[in-house]
Amino acid sequence: MLPKLELNTIVALASAQGSGAISLIRLSGKDSIEIINKIFKGKDLTKQKPNTIHFGFIKEENEVIDEVLVSIFKAPNSFTKENSVEITCHGSSYIIQKIIELLIKQGARLAAPGEFTKRAFINGRFDLTQAEAIADLIASDTQISHNIAMNNLRGGISKKINEFRNQLINFASLLELELDFSEEDVEFADRNQLINIINELTKEIKTILDGFKLGNAVKKGVPVVIVGKPNVGKSTLLNVLLNEERAIVSDIPGTTRDFIEDQINIEGINFRFVDTAGIRKAKDKIEAIGIDRTFEKMKKASLILYLLDLENGNAQNINLEQITNLNIPYIIIGNKLDKANVDNIKYFNKNKDSLLISAYKNQNIDKLKKLMIKKLGINQNYESHTIISNARHYDIFIKINQSLNEVLSNLKQNITSELIVSDIRIALNYLGEITGEITTDDLLDNIFSKFCIGK
Amino acid sequence: MLPKLELNTIVALASAQGSGAISLIRLSGKDSIEIINKIFKGKDLTKQKPNTIHFGFIKEENEVIDEVLVSIFKAPNSFTKENSVEITCHGSSYIIQKIIELLIKQGARLAAPGEFTKRAFINGRFDLTQAEAIADLIASDTQISHNIAMNNLRGGISKKINEFRNQLINFASLLELELDFSEEDVEFADRNQLINIINELTKEIKTILDGFKLGNAVKKGVPVVIVGKPNVGKSTLLNVLLNEERAIVSDIPGTTRDFIEDQINIEGINFRFVDTAGIRKAKDKIEAIGIDRTFEKMKKASLILYLLDLENGNAQNINLEQITNLNIPYIIIGNKLDKANVDNIKYFNKNKDSLLISAYKNQNIDKLKKLMIKKLGINQNYESHTIISNARHYDIFIKINQSLNEVLSNLKQNITSELIVSDIRIALNYLGEITGEITTDDLLDNIFSKFCIGK
Repeated sequence: MLPKLELNTIVALASAQGSGAISLIRLSGKDSIEIINKIFKGKDLTKQKPNTIHFGFIKEENEVIDEVLVSIFKAPNSFTKENSVEITCHGSSYIIQKIIELLIKQGARLAAPGEFTKRAFINGRFDLTQAEAIADLIASDTQISHNIAMNNLRGGISKKINEFRNQLINFASLLELELDFSEEDVEFADRNQLINIINELTKEIKTILDGFKLGNAVKKGVPVVIVGKPNVGKSTLLNVLLNEERAIVSDIPGTTRDFIEDQINIEGINFRFVDTAGIRKAKDKIEAIGIDRTFEKMKKASLILYLLDLENGNAQNINLEQITNLNIPYIIIGNKLDKANVDNIKYFNKNKDSLLISAYKNQNIDKLKKLMIKKLGINQNYESHTIISNARHYDIFIKINQSLNEVLSNLKQNITSELIVSDIRIALNYLGEITGEITTDDLLDNIFSKFCIGK
Repeated sequence: MLPKLELNTIVALASAQGSGAISLIRLSGKDSIEIINKIFKGKDLTKQKPNTIHFGFIKEENEVIDEVLVSIFKAPNSFTKENSVEITCHGSSYIIQKIIELLIKQGARLAAPGEFTKRAFINGRFDLTQAEAIADLIASDTQISHNIAMNNLRGGISKKINEFRNQLINFASLLELELDFSEEDVEFADRNQLINIINELTKEIKTILDGFKLGNAVKKGVPVVIVGKPNVGKSTLLNVLLNEERAIVSDIPGTTRDFIEDQINIEGINFRFVDTAGIRKAKDKIEAIGIDRTFEKMKKASLILYLLDLENGNAQNINLEQITNLNIPYIIIGNKLDKANVDNIKYFNKNKDSLLISAYKNQNIDKLKKLMIKKLGINQNYESHTIISNARHYDIFIKINQSLNEVLSNLKQNITSELIVSDIRIALNYLGEITGEITTDDLLDNIFSKFCIGK
């Protein structure tokens, strides 16, 4: 079922581009060691033990290109399970380019995006969910996204899927036994017991589908809009939230992650503020709930922050239907608490979904952040169960769920075992698609082409 | 003479920041292996042989931070000549930061800029010129700059300085012998022979000083200005030159060097066009030779391209004195060759420093590029001798030259050997400053603080 592996030796820069002290170039394939040996001066690399490091020179004719360290890995004990070589060279763009050129001249070819990971998958180092988790791991920039990716890289999803598979296979074999003896009208499998098994499975799958909400929020971020009348303090609130984030992003020099404009990280979830240009520029514009554009903005969001003015506004006049009809989580925020009018405060104290703040005085901003997380309705207890963050997996789990519901309904209607077994086989097939046991070239190309070269 | 080394173990990210498949974290210092061992699960790294690679996990309590490869190096067989460790981890900003944090918790400290190279220098792995060449090597993005840096990293300057030193020491010992027997008025050293030796040395130093012109141009680029009357075609010429460069900069995906705006690379030398904003915007402005601003521009340049209009201009009226008085290399370029007026062509054919082109039709642009290189008067035969590209070395060689001239003049005037020996000692001291045998903390701080963290 798996595609046949091309046996060429591939090469790519594996460390990040840009200025650094050291860069790392990776070779993988049967001839890796022979190929590096042709341009390496110092010793005969083909005679070295695996997992050893060798100092020497990369030369082009008599010209020294660089002083390097070469690490030797031998199949199957390497990332790709092929012979592999890692070259640690000085981080100069000229040197990197030159060394890759020389390796290509000696018979390597430039790796396609994700090709190292693809080879590792095809050679059985891990399944497809683990290969996909590598890309997530590299992209992860918060503890939660890291933990989810690491759990899946270490086989979190695979393990879950194996449990499902074993239960479905047991289930199917019970039914198949029945089929073998069908003429004798024997019922080996207790239908109620079967229904219980499927109920348990669908419950677990529901947990996984619910977990995707967290997984996806962690991976893609949560789009938030701030809406409200002019001068209610939208841009002040935005700046208070963003400035705190700016102050936090730093830590160890040389490892600072990029500050992403208009995004804040609350308990590991990235909230992306949508259409902030509008908020920053909107000083003169009439902009309030009720205008079409505002509705368009709100529809794009996964969370709405609806700002009211405690000083000049009149809370009694609020028409919340416009928001509640959208069926998107929202928070009613009374701003300018420092100069609030008493009637407005009274109104707010009656409203559970609301919060009083002063963006200007940085008052209750922490409470707002906690409420933002709470409003997402995400089960943050991610450590207790497998979290999927991959839309491909989510789509397949939806289909598995449908198959199992089909099974359940057929069981209840006493439909023949033959049909039920066929539904179970469909569900098993879907499980195989997630782990990559059942796959196509197109699917693999689609997955790995999203990786970078060198991965 | 050398500063005492602090014995802490240092840590830093050594590969480039940013997104990549793999990142490399470096530890150096006596306790490197013990420190990594405390957070590494898989095997006991303190019991492993040097130059070996080990797969395992970095853990914080029970949480897996990453699957990594750890390379072990033992003093003195490492870059810094100390115990060292290289950790190859996934290229995620979260993982990098976390691993460095954990290593710091276990007793490492974050490395200062250039501290790995500084330790290598202090521990005698190489001299100061070689340490400086590492920064040049990493920054080099053309073949020439790479070759110059690599030659110096491999001891090109050091070797030359040793030759000078040996000759000066021989020379001094001849004179000192004379001093020992001074009461007897014996002259052991033939003064003419001594003069010849110094002449030879100053000749070699002159070659080195001249070579700095190339070294510096290669390292810093050559500032060029394009001047000429409005509508003479300045921006067309600029675009023709820059567009060719844009098309060339590429090669191997993943290794592409940055395209630097308004800079072109001709035979390994970067020409930087100065004040191009003026050229692009100057459509309406009256701008021509004679205006103060243009002179200011020209004074900043190392090469002037003076454009004349072969169609509408009148070459007879050119007053070249304004340019020749600046004493900066220049090229007179007749543009719009495709629509040229015959008299103008005649004039140009008589002028050796000129060239006819059509920027619009891309005519003779290659000839122009060749002429630009030629006009710099650089001896490009860089392979035959040591090239310095470091202003610190240049300044010291100037001083050595002065000392030797002093020696020469004293020899000719039959000044006592005592004084001459003292001048020679001064020159020897300067040589020691270049290689770092004679140095101060301030000088080292100054040199290495310009390195990045991780180098």
